[in-house]
Order: sequence, then C-alpha cells, then structure tokens
Amino acid sequence: MSATADPALPVDLRSDTLTRPTEAMRAAMARAEVGDDVYGEDPTVRELEERVAALLGHEAALFTPTGSMANVLAVSLVVSPGQEVLCESSAHIARAELGAHAAIGGVTMRTWTHPRGGVDLEAVRALHAPEMGPFFVRTAAISVENTHNFAGGAVLPLADLQSLRTFADETGTALHLDGARLWNAHVATGEPLAAYGALVDVAAVCLSKGLGAPVGSLVVGSAAAMTEARVRRKRLGGGMRQVGVLAAAGLHALDHHVERLAEDHAHARLLAEAVGVDPAGVETNIVVWQHPDAASVVARAAELGVRLATVGPRTVRLVTHLGVTRADAERAAVVLARLA
Amino acid sequence: MSATADPALPVDLRSDTLTRPTEAMRAAMARAEVGDDVYGEDPTVRELEERVAALLGHEAALFTPTGSMANVLAVSLVVSPGQEVLCESSAHIARAELGAHAAIGGVTMRTWTHPRGGVDLEAVRALHAPEMGPFFVRTAAISVENTHNFAGGAVLPLADLQSLRTFADETGTALHLDGARLWNAHVATGEPLAAYGALVDVAAVCLSKGLGAPVGSLVVGSAAAMTEARVRRKRLGGGMRQVGVLAAAGLHALDHHVERLAEDHAHARLLAEAVGVDPAGVETNIVVWQHPDAASVVARAAELGVRLATVGPRTVRLVTHLGVTRADAERAAVVLARLA
Amino acid sequence: MSATADPALPVDLRSDTLTRPTEAMRAAMARAEVGDDVYGEDPTVRELEERVAALLGHEAALFTPTGSMANVLAVSLVVSPGQEVLCESSAHIARAELGAHAAIGGVTMRTWTHPRGGVDLEAVRALHAPEMGPFFVRTAAISVENTHNFAGGAVLPLADLQSLRTFADETGTALHLDGARLWNAHVATGEPLAAYGALVDVAAVCLSKGLGAPVGSLVVGSAAAMTEARVRRKRLGGGMRQVGVLAAAGLHALDHHVERLAEDHAHARLLAEAVGVDPAGVETNIVVWQHPDAASVVARAAELGVRLATVGPRTVRLVTHLGVTRADAERAAVVLARLA
Amino acid sequence: MSATADPALPVDLRSDTLTRPTEAMRAAMARAEVGDDVYGEDPTVRELEERVAALLGHEAALFTPTGSMANVLAVSLVVSPGQEVLCESSAHIARAELGAHAAIGGVTMRTWTHPRGGVDLEAVRALHAPEMGPFFVRTAAISVENTHNFAGGAVLPLADLQSLRTFADETGTALHLDGARLWNAHVATGEPLAAYGALVDVAAVCLSKGLGAPVGSLVVGSAAAMTEARVRRKRLGGGMRQVGVLAAAGLHALDHHVERLAEDHAHARLLAEAVGVDPAGVETNIVVWQHPDAASVVARAAELGVRLATVGPRTVRLVTHLGVTRADAERAAVVLARLA
Repeated sequence: MSATADPALPVDLRSDTLTRPTEAMRAAMARAEVGDDVYGEDPTVRELEERVAALLGHEAALFTPTGSMANVLAVSLVVSPGQEVLCESSAHIARAELGAHAAIGGVTMRTWTHPRGGVDLEAVRALHAPEMGPFFVRTAAISVENTHNFAGGAVLPLADLQSLRTFADETGTALHLDGARLWNAHVATGEPLAAYGALVDVAAVCLSKGLGAPVGSLVVGSAAAMTEARVRRKRLGGGMRQVGVLAAAGLHALDHHVERLAEDHAHARLLAEAVGVDPAGVETNIVVWQHPDAASVVARAAELGVRLATVGPRTVRLVTHLGVTRADAERAAVVLARLA
Repeated sequence: MSATADPALPVDLRSDTLTRPTEAMRAAMARAEVGDDVYGEDPTVRELEERVAALLGHEAALFTPTGSMANVLAVSLVVSPGQEVLCESSAHIARAELGAHAAIGGVTMRTWTHPRGGVDLEAVRALHAPEMGPFFVRTAAISVENTHNFAGGAVLPLADLQSLRTFADETGTALHLDGARLWNAHVATGEPLAAYGALVDVAAVCLSKGLGAPVGSLVVGSAAAMTEARVRRKRLGGGMRQVGVLAAAGLHALDHHVERLAEDHAHARLLAEAVGVDPAGVETNIVVWQHPDAASVVARAAELGVRLATVGPRTVRLVTHLGVTRADAERAAVVLARLA
Repeated sequence: MSATADPALPVDLRSDTLTRPTEAMRAAMARAEVGDDVYGEDPTVRELEERVAALLGHEAALFTPTGSMANVLAVSLVVSPGQEVLCESSAHIARAELGAHAAIGGVTMRTWTHPRGGVDLEAVRALHAPEMGPFFVRTAAISVENTHNFAGGAVLPLADLQSLRTFADETGTALHLDGARLWNAHVATGEPLAAYGALVDVAAVCLSKGLGAPVGSLVVGSAAAMTEARVRRKRLGGGMRQVGVLAAAGLHALDHHVERLAEDHAHARLLAEAVGVDPAGVETNIVVWQHPDAASVVARAAELGVRLATVGPRTVRLVTHLGVTRADAERAAVVLARLA
Repeated sequence: MSATADPALPVDLRSDTLTRPTEAMRAAMARAEVGDDVYGEDPTVRELEERVAALLGHEAALFTPTGSMANVLAVSLVVSPGQEVLCESSAHIARAELGAHAAIGGVTMRTWTHPRGGVDLEAVRALHAPEMGPFFVRTAAISVENTHNFAGGAVLPLADLQSLRTFADETGTALHLDGARLWNAHVATGEPLAAYGALVDVAAVCLSKGLGAPVGSLVVGSAAAMTEARVRRKRLGGGMRQVGVLAAAGLHALDHHVERLAEDHAHARLLAEAVGVDPAGVETNIVVWQHPDAASVVARAAELGVRLATVGPRTVRLVTHLGVTRADAERAAVVLARLA
C-alpha cells in the first residue's frame, strides 16, 4: 500500500497529513457522481455529510477544504465576536491556525495548561467568566481536542468530557470538539464516535490526516447551525463546486481506513520505545519527543532516511500513518534508536 | 461529452460553475502525482502554479479552493485594513463574495457604475483618494473584472485596462484583476492572457467555471506576494494537502478546454437571439436578460426543461459551458424563444 | 466671543471642529454634576442623552467621544459583518473615517455619486441588493449625510429623505443618518430636527462642530439599540467616566449655539462670493472651492492670515463657525478675493 | 475633598474610576488653553503627552479617551492580526476589554495563571512560540499589568519585569505594560515610573482611576509608534478635538494626586483587616475578598451604606480612592467587619 516500503525512500514521519490516496481511493474518486455543491447539488458530498453527521450523532454536517476552516466555522457558530473560548494552551486552535479565530472570527481566548492536553476542570472553573454585564468578556465556549496533536496524540478520557459537559450545562456554555483525529481516539478506546459527538455542541473532523483522503474536513452540529455555516463557508472562500471527487475519497476512507488506524498506533509505540519515550503514554499515532536540540535531531535523521518534524524548539514529533508500513516503522526505529 | 445532449435531461444554463469533469479529466486526476502542498511538496500543483504564472506573465501563482478566496487574498495583498479598493458597482468582489473583503480583510470600497461593467476613467479619477494624512481613506487599489459576470460576460477592452494602468502608475495605485473568466476574454479577443496579466499587480483566475475543472482557482503576482499569500491562505483555511488531484484537472483543462470556449460563445449568441438580446453585445458565454419578472421566467423555463438563474429581481442570466452541446443550445433556444 | 476678531491673528476657516469653548461654556463645564458613566451614573450625560433623543424623535441616545465613533456604532447597529451599506461616494463614512466601517464592523459599501452629496433614487434602486440566498451580499442599510460636508454643506431636501424612506420600507432596508451637522440643516431650512430624525432608524449627531463643544457626539435610536451600542462603545474604548464635564458643554451648546448657526451661514455666503462660488449653492457653513492647485491656494492664503484646508488635490474647503466673527469673515473675504 | 465624609452618603468602594474631579481640578480645566487635537494643535494635551512620555522614559505619548483604547492601540502596535500576545489569565486586557484585542485587532491570546497576577517565567517560556514558518502562531508580545486589578492591586516586582525583559530580548518579543495603575505601584514601592517604563516597548497609563481625572489615558512608546497610533486612534473613533479641557485635569492630577495615593493604600489595608484579608497582601488600593456569595455581600453592604462590586461570582472587590476619606474608610471598616 505504501511506496515507502522501498528502503531507498525515506520514511516520512513528519505528519499524517502526508498520506497519498491509495489506488482504490483514486478509483473511487474517478467514478464519483458530482454536482455543484454551492447549489447543494452534489450527491456524493451530501452522502458524506449525512454519514459523518450520523456517526457523530448530530443532525447535519458540512464539508470544508481543511480542518482549520472546519474549526474556524465551528467555533464561530458558538462564540460571537468579542466573546471568549477557553482551551488548553497547546490546542491546535490556539497554536496552529495562525490566529484565525481572532483575525477572522474576533474570538478571544484564555488557556489552561495540561500535560496531556486534557481538561483540568478546576482550571476551567477558575477561568470561566459568566455573563456579568457590559464589562467582562463572557466565556461562550470551551474547546477540547481529541486526540491532542501537540500532546502526543493523547486521548481525552470520555469521563473528562462528560464532567466538562456537566459544567458547561450548569453555566450555559457551549462545547467545541476539535476532532481532527477523533477516529484515532475511537480506535484506541473502542468508544463509538457518537459517544464523543453527543457531548459537544459543534465538532470538526478531518479526512486528510489518519484517514488518508487527499483533501477535506467536516463541521458537524445542528441543522440550523450548518445552514449558517454554509453562508460563512462561502464568505471564507470555502464554497467549492464539484466536491464529490473529494467526498468520494472521504467515503472510501470511512469504509476502509478507520480500523487500520490500530496499525499506526502499534507503529507509534514501536518508535516511542526506540527514542526512549514511554510507550504507555503513546495512545495513538503521535510521539512527542523532547530533545534539547530538536532541529539537529531532525537534520541527522533526514540524512539517515527518516523525516521528522519540530513542533517547538525542543520538541520533535513523529507521526505514523497510512503511508508507513510495518517495515518502514521498523527501519525508522533502528535509525532513531541510534540518534536517541 | 455532455450528458445533457439527452433530450430527457434539462439544459442547465444557470452557471458555468456547474460543469462536471469529463472522463479524460477524471483519468488525469486519478493518475496525478501528489504530495502535501502545505509543505510545498505537491509536484502537480507546483506545475500548475508555474504554468498559470507564466501564462499571465507573473512570477508566481498560488492555488486556492475557490475564486472567492483567490480574490480575497489578491485584494488583501494590495489593500491593507482600513484602506480602499475602487471597483465597478456590479463587480463580483462587491456583489457576490458576501462582504469578505470587508469582513475578513477590513477593506472598504467605493464604486462607479458602467453599463458593461467596464472602466469609466473619469469616474475613477473623481473617486480616487490619494494619501492625504491621517484623515482620509486612501485608495490603495482599483479592481476590474474581465470578463464581467453580471454585465453579461462583457470583455474589458485592453485599451481601457492600459489607460487605467497609466492612471494607476501616476497615482501609485495597485491594480487587481478578477480574471475568473479571463480565458473567455482571451478566446473572444485573441489577446494573449499575458497582455492582460502584465497590466495588473495581482490577479485571480478560476479553473472551475468555463474551464470545467471541479475545484480550484489561482492568485498570481510577485514571488514575494505569493509567499505572503501562502500564509494568509493557511489562516483562511485554504491550505489543502494532496492538491495534485485537483491541480491535474486544471492542467488538463488548460490543455483541452481553453480554445473550445469559442463554442460556448457561439451558443450564447444563439440564446441571446432567442430571447431578444442583441447578440452583438454578447461577447462571451453569458447572456443577461432583463425581464420584469425574472423569477417567473425561471420557473416556466424549468418546466420546459431549461434551467436559468436570476441574479437580480429583474435579471435572468443564461450561461453556456462545457456541459451544453450545440444540440442542447438549440433545444434551449426553441424553449426560450417561446417565453421571450 | 472670538479671539480671532484681533486682526493680528489668522482667521481659521479650515474646519468647524476648531471652535474653542466660550467662557460661558467653560463655566457650565466647571459646575457640571458628574458620576461614572460606565456605570450609567452621570446625571449630566443622561440629561443630554435624553434631550438629544427627544430632539430627534427617538427613544434613546448614547454619548460618544467622536462623530466617527457615533457613525461606526450607528451603522454597526443596522448592518452586520459581511452585509452592505449604500452611500453617496463622498460621504464622510466612506471618505473620512479611515475605513473603520470595514476594518472594525466588517461592513462593505457600494456608492452612488451625486453633485450635492444627495440621494439619487434611481441609482439607489439599481444598486440595492435584496436578500437572495447565500450568494449575494445583502443591502442592509442606506446612509445619508445632512448637511453634506464634502459637497459644501449641502442640505438634503426633506422630500428626498421621505422618498428614500418609502423605498427603504418597501425593501426592508434600514436608514442611517450622519447628522454631524444636522443642526445646520435645521437652521437653514427651519425644519425641526425630529422631521429628519423620524425618517431614519439610527442617526449620529455631533456637538463639537458647529455647536462649539470641545468633545462629543451622540448616537440616537431605539432603547434596545442603545443598550447594545453601550456594550460596543465599551469594546471600542469609548466608555468614558465622568462624562458630565463634556455633556455640560453639549447642553450649553444646545441652549445657546443652535440658532446662531444662521450667522455662520451668512458668513459662508460672503466668502463664497469672494472666491467666485455661487452663494445660492451655499446653504450652510461650508464652501467648497474647486481650484486647479488647491495646495498652493492654501499656502498663499496662510501667508495672508487666512487658514484654509484642502479636501482633495483640486478642492479647497472654507468653513465658518463660532470662532469666526463678522469682522473675521469680512477680513478673510478681502484676502480670498485677491487670490481667486 | 470628598463628599462622602458626610455619613449620610454611602461610601463607594466599587472602583477608583468613580472619583469626581475636585474643585481645583475643575478650575484647571476651566482655564485650559485648547486647540484641535486632531490637527495636533492643542497645547495642553501636548504638554501632558510630553510629560507622561518623559515620566515613563519613552519618546512620545498619545492621549486616548479610555484605558481600554490605550491598551488596544498599544497592543496593536506590537502584535499584528493573526499574531499572539501572552498574558496572565486575569489580566484586564483578557477579562475586561470585551474581547477588543481579538474583535478589533485580530490578536489571539494564550494565558498563564499566577496568584498575584504576576509573571511565571517558566510558564511564559513554555507558552512562548517563536517564528516557525507559516504553520504556527507567533508570540509577538507579552503583556503585564502593574498594579494588577483583579489580583487585588498587586505590584509586579521590578525584578520580575527585568527577568521578563531579558527573556523578551532573547526571543525577539515585545513587552506591553498595562499601567492603568502604575502610579500606585510607583507610590507603593518608591520605584520611579521610568524604572518600569524603560523595560517595556509600549505602555498604557490611566488618569481617571487613582489619579482622579474625569476622562483620559495615554499610550507611550517610540515617536514612530505614536505617529501610527494617532492614525489608528482616529479609525477607532478616539480622535477628539479640544482635548485640553481633559488634559488639564490630567496635568493637575500629576501635580497633586500622585503622592496622596499612599493614603488610599493605607485605607485599603484598614479595610482588608476588617474583612479578614491579610493586609500584608494588600500592596495598593484594591482588596479582593473571596466570599462564597459575592452578590449577597454586596447587597447587604449597600443597605448599610457601603457600595462594593463583584468581579466574579465568588469575588468581591473593594477599591479606595480620592473620594474616600479616612473617616469614610473607618466607617466602611465598621460596616464590613460586621458582614465578614
């Protein structure tokens, strides 16, 4: 399935966004029935939207070109300009969306810090600002990320999300789930996707990371929210036309690439062991490796045929995915063990 | 090539965004070489960007999911928040991008009105605001659209663009070209694309209208501007991954769907005649048909197997495209003549 | 009353924003009862707000530090981000508020052009965009300016505003009045302020132009709108504290400086005659003088003790106000006649 | 000096923004020399700007109507749209400016938490994001507040600011100081204002809190930054006219109301003791009193002639100021001791 089983090619562990569509996925794309999705007439994207909405236990879904746009739309549906979203300080929405929530949505943020990117309910309670007249910013939403990218693919325990839901209900606060890698959480825990989906008001999921589709994410929420999101998607420049060619890849991925994420998780633990990270802490497909000189580790690994990424000056990230076979993972482990 | 030659199917004249990829285009997409374009590693999108930049006589280009995003990025490169762009009052950037230039880019607009969506240099001169200290909004750019959608696909005469360039140079003002249908202007006039491109600072062109690709547009400009546009595209949620599957459709369209636009133009004149619009005024593939009750014309045509769109309460629009054969056009002409 | 009756001092015709508070006004400020207006506890600003609301026939008013902030708040109350306001192309909101409506409010604009800054109902009809689904920008409001600064203090005929109101009602569109100099229109025509006020949804009026207060403007509208405007004013940084010291100046101006605007109007006609502008076209206190080299006229007048402003490369503006006595006006007329 | 020495009147401890101008301050305002500050011609505001700039050891200063506008301008000078500012989670810029930094400036935030609103350098280091290509938000600035309002008027130790400066220099990050109550820090510690000012790139200070002026704040920074801030102030609607009437109050306050802040600090310790807050932790004029039912404490105190504010569901705030005499403070202490 992966070209990188060829030992002459580098094993690319920079990101699971690097996956290339498989032959079978390309064939599905080539025969996709399409229409103009701006007019709501693409049957394949409709099928995908309905299927993803159902998987997450929501009324409706909307296809977007990227996970960033899905998050920007999702958060904007529950947080108005000048209001606040709380999130963990290494959340993707805080660190890796180039300030879009503020720059486009006018949304302000405050953050707590948790070693696994998770929920610290006491910190949330302390930060949370109720409606208090025209003086204070109101906390309109709390955002969580599951699995958590920069915390090494950590799974958010369902019980923590349930406690947060209770707090959110008590305080009239919305919950947003950045579920770009929710598929990985589902496979790692066995919890149905809807178990997470049911606890949040809006969510974003991504097809082009672990699932291996070339392009595409979705927002899920109420039917009314998705109607509004459709207008805002057009304003952001995300109203594409014959989207069925992309949606077909997503449908194929849902059929064929979800359960296989377990392989990526096993490969990640193998790599963790190689670099001296406790594999017990590696729940899914990401290994975060603290190293005093991240940039030089990345450079040396590249020379030895293994591509890694830095996500901070002292943080190397290894990500397994559809394009990394067992043989690739083993080859990379040998190289990385040497560097560790 | 088109499914609508089948007389049982409606002839769809609502928009040239409705085109479905041909079999050959799908095949090109299915075999496209891809990579992660956020990392700048997709060879097919790179090839497309280089080719389009060269066609328009610019240094560089950047792929975007839609023409709206291409325009928002292009204008934002030459107009800062709180500055002004001047355009014709029925320009797509003014009427049909849901206020994105203001809502996202903080760009303010003033407009002139021209019967063919063209340049009224005296009006531009009167509107133009030079730098005058911290009191007045400065005109940072002037935007033109070629061909002009809501003015019935009118071509902007090259001489008018040249005069505008002279004025822009005199006043230190940038020019933006919304060239979503620049291909049609090129085919209608025989002028090379670069003749238009060379006269502007930034431009947007679209692959998913007359050219028939399912998804995609490009911004063109200087290499430095495109580097900045790449960051802003990511912020807007337009940084897609294995974009080669879409870029391959664009490359195929450039090879096979440019010259054939002449057929669309001939079909449009045929339809113009049928509805009593002077075909001499129909330069490309759009017929704007003024009718006191646009909505009812659209409804009656639909019953007779011809789909039209309103673009104003008293304005019906007919658009020919890749999906409308000669036989389709003739069949639609018979129906529309009856309604006219 | 004015220090400039002293022939050694220049006569300053640059703007009616230059007025200095009179001794009586300063005394009123010095004895003003005050409180913290962010808490809604300043009795003097309350009195002023109630009085101005009543004068314009609206439920409520809100004090702002400037006319620009009053306009930004007023327009934002009737036009949401991504929606459109139509206005005349030389309107203050379009030309002289540094793009704030777009940069802060996300509001997009299209413009018509009228020689006296007035309403061209046919142009408005042609521009107006009704709600047409998630494709087109909707015209949410139309803005007029009365009197019109850059059109030489022209009064908007009440009949034109009435026709516009009818059109606005037919189309579900809001009307905004930039009434920075509505006092001048009132004095010039004898129409009560409420005659204008009653025809619009929101308005802004200014105390620091012809009325001679040092600082302050007000937004007027419904009570609910003003409640929301209070929050937005705080966000913009306009929630000041012991505002009564400024509001007292405004109350004093309403008592003493409205009817005297007739003197300013007479002085303006005198100056118009001196520079060869038809005084019949000078309805209030502003003379717009077209001159091929505006900057050099301004420079020469300054040498001769008369200060003027350019408001365009070929446009000189003369403004009379509280600080210009009859003797000042006559002295300036002599100087300007020489330059004309 | 204060009307509230009258035992029939409530002692108002809600905020130090409540101060009313003294007779001497009113007299200074009444005789202020003024001009049009939008034209840069008001001598009194110029004098104030120069004096405040010098006090803080910066090149220039700019008067603004409020502390919120001063902060929005100051932060926007060092953080571009889509970039990040780090601050403590209860900072005024995060909690009490209605999201203006995001809604107006497009600035995103992450926060650390410190019991006295201070600097946790390890947390700052962990949060700080260097320039890392077009993927990650960059930390452009770090903001501190001194004294810290919601942390009970805590002084930021100068040594902590020095350490932060070192870190900022190492990382190419700007420092912003919200010095609304920097005067209190100066009086409490004896450190000159410039000792703090010299360590930051931009700062905001306020005249209408402890200093007792009715209206006004200032931004300080480089001359070039202030030139840009002047344009942005106009866009925000903060370009007022005869500002000298307000600036005169500020100059009077600098002459007469700085050293007397020591009295406010003594009164605050008295009140702290009364409510059972450790007076050793009360460094300036604010007492933060944690109480399980803040709203009911406020209600009961009001009945007994003492006005307090809640700044959170379990947080009561007491603030001493120019309008609270020794007798007032003693009277309030008796009442509050009964409630505590």
